[in-house]
Amino acid sequence: MRRDARRGQGGGARRIAECRPAPAPAPAASVPSRPVPSRAPGPEPDPARPPARPSFAALAAAHGARKMEDYGRFLALLASSLLVGFVSVILSLVWVFHYREGLSWDGSPGEFNWHPVLIITGFVFIQGIAIIVYRLPWIWKCSKLLMKFIHAGLNTIAMILAIVSMVAVFDFHNAKNIPNMYSLHSWIGLTAVIFYSLQLFLGFAVFLLPFAPVHLRVALMPIHVYSGLTIFATVIATALMGITEKLIFALKNPAYSASPPEATLVNCLGILLVIFGSLILWMASRPHWKRPPAENAKILRPTGATPEGTEVESTMTNSSNADKSDLRSNTEAARKQNIKFDEAGQRSTM
Amino acid sequence: MRRDARRGQGGGARRIAECRPAPAPAPAASVPSRPVPSRAPGPEPDPARPPARPSFAALAAAHGARKMEDYGRFLALLASSLLVGFVSVILSLVWVFHYREGLSWDGSPGEFNWHPVLIITGFVFIQGIAIIVYRLPWIWKCSKLLMKFIHAGLNTIAMILAIVSMVAVFDFHNAKNIPNMYSLHSWIGLTAVIFYSLQLFLGFAVFLLPFAPVHLRVALMPIHVYSGLTIFATVIATALMGITEKLIFALKNPAYSASPPEATLVNCLGILLVIFGSLILWMASRPHWKRPPAENAKILRPTGATPEGTEVESTMTNSSNADKSDLRSNTEAARKQNIKFDEAGQRSTM
Repeated sequence: MRRDARRGQGGGARRIAECRPAPAPAPAASVPSRPVPSRAPGPEPDPARPPARPSFAALAAAHGARKMEDYGRFLALLASSLLVGFVSVILSLVWVFHYREGLSWDGSPGEFNWHPVLIITGFVFIQGIAIIVYRLPWIWKCSKLLMKFIHAGLNTIAMILAIVSMVAVFDFHNAKNIPNMYSLHSWIGLTAVIFYSLQLFLGFAVFLLPFAPVHLRVALMPIHVYSGLTIFATVIATALMGITEKLIFALKNPAYSASPPEATLVNCLGILLVIFGSLILWMASRPHWKRPPAENAKILRPTGATPEGTEVESTMTNSSNADKSDLRSNTEAARKQNIKFDEAGQRSTM
Repeated sequence: MRRDARRGQGGGARRIAECRPAPAPAPAASVPSRPVPSRAPGPEPDPARPPARPSFAALAAAHGARKMEDYGRFLALLASSLLVGFVSVILSLVWVFHYREGLSWDGSPGEFNWHPVLIITGFVFIQGIAIIVYRLPWIWKCSKLLMKFIHAGLNTIAMILAIVSMVAVFDFHNAKNIPNMYSLHSWIGLTAVIFYSLQLFLGFAVFLLPFAPVHLRVALMPIHVYSGLTIFATVIATALMGITEKLIFALKNPAYSASPPEATLVNCLGILLVIFGSLILWMASRPHWKRPPAENAKILRPTGATPEGTEVESTMTNSSNADKSDLRSNTEAARKQNIKFDEAGQRSTM
């Protein structure tokens, strides 16, 4: 019966772009829930915990009210971060067009100017959005695989823009006989780009392609999340160093220390980058705004149909999955595996 | 019976310095456990989860082996972060004594040099240790209040060193007629010191003094943890900007771009600061290295004695606690409260 239900939903390839028809995020049922209720109770439950349970209606009402409140808070933070990120991109354009030489690709300072614009647009703003894309309740209705593609796609765009922005600097330096790779900014910046590319490659190989075994995904997910957030913070720190360098080198008469309008504008840009990073890290690290992990927990349930878009099945070959699931059903191994999938699913929602 | 057991352990004041006699962190029983088993099951448990349970002996053996492995990993990371932090402090001293003017307090560059030394020693190294102090298994045997004092004490030392280091810069700038507060480094640095002082003051008022109600502690703990880690990351970013500024200003012949030995040494110092920050943030964000929250969960249990050093009782007036607990026991309110305390306890262990 379970196998029939799965087959009735179509193959894994068809599920990539599949979204459920009920998109509304506002009702309590479709906004993020705190993970506590869905966390697996441990194998040895606390014997001293009182067995009494509150009425379901009372709990559901309180739960719904909290979710609505949480949803409003999430929306406010999302709007703030989008605004701050957008204003940062605009300020970088104002900087290079109003105070500097604009944009060009001819070895002139105009070519260098691509560097701050593309870093702030791609490596800060788009990377930030890529980090919290799993948190957007509107796309929870879509399959996990589609969400992974959006996450990987945004990060790929960010990486391409970061690489192009580095090429612009090397090109400009070479045209002007300025040494490359001497500053702390360049050392940490290049390291961040290398780690970011590695992160993208490993994320693609392990979490998007269907070959990695589940235990490897479970083991690597916390590292993937941690290194993603750390690289993001490092990129912002590197941008702040870059702003410092550029203002010291570019502002001569009046100097940076005389606080001309350009210095004030670009200092404000730096502050906005810190605020943007702080907002993204707050949203990414709130457990109750994670994509609900219920989908993952259902993978190996012994009874009932398995929905589309789960962490494991959506990136595995469909033909073998149902058999694997059936083999494991009703076994203790399946139960323990379920807990692991559940954890991996929760961590993967950043 | 419960009240007797609590009274038998002595008052809250006596518990401040109380440590349990079994300090050994190596055995499985005293190293960190993953939070999943101790997390409270939600009010609506998953009805589809199989009811089967593994044997306790098998689980305990697997659990113990994982804990030992985890403990070794924690020790390796702790040793690495201490080494990296210590080498960073040494490199800052080598920088100012070997390449710069040493240390003095007379308005000369020697006074400025206190700035990098004290920031790296206090605002980076000591703050980093203060963040992970709750993770050290050796002091889990001590009361939570004593651990809070250690945490607050280290952060106070870090704040004092940061303020002295700022005074050194202002003094030096004023003596040399260099403008203050024009750079992005100074803007973000001063903001970080203000937020850090605010964090310390609020942490003292809410979590250390016995006046804040429990629901306020529960509500503020995630914000306290997040802002602590974000300020720490911002401080490191600010240090990197400071290094960049100083190398550009100080290195003239040869210039920074010629990569003299001083530039290479201080760039390496910057890289070490990033590695130190990354190690601290990794240790602080692993849920299975948190101080076990079991103590907190026992606070309001309806039966059995309550051990010392819990999140709530240790900072509340002892006289009223037992009555409060008795009133709440065996009620649904107590059960829900327990879950909240458990969460707050877990979050407070960073």
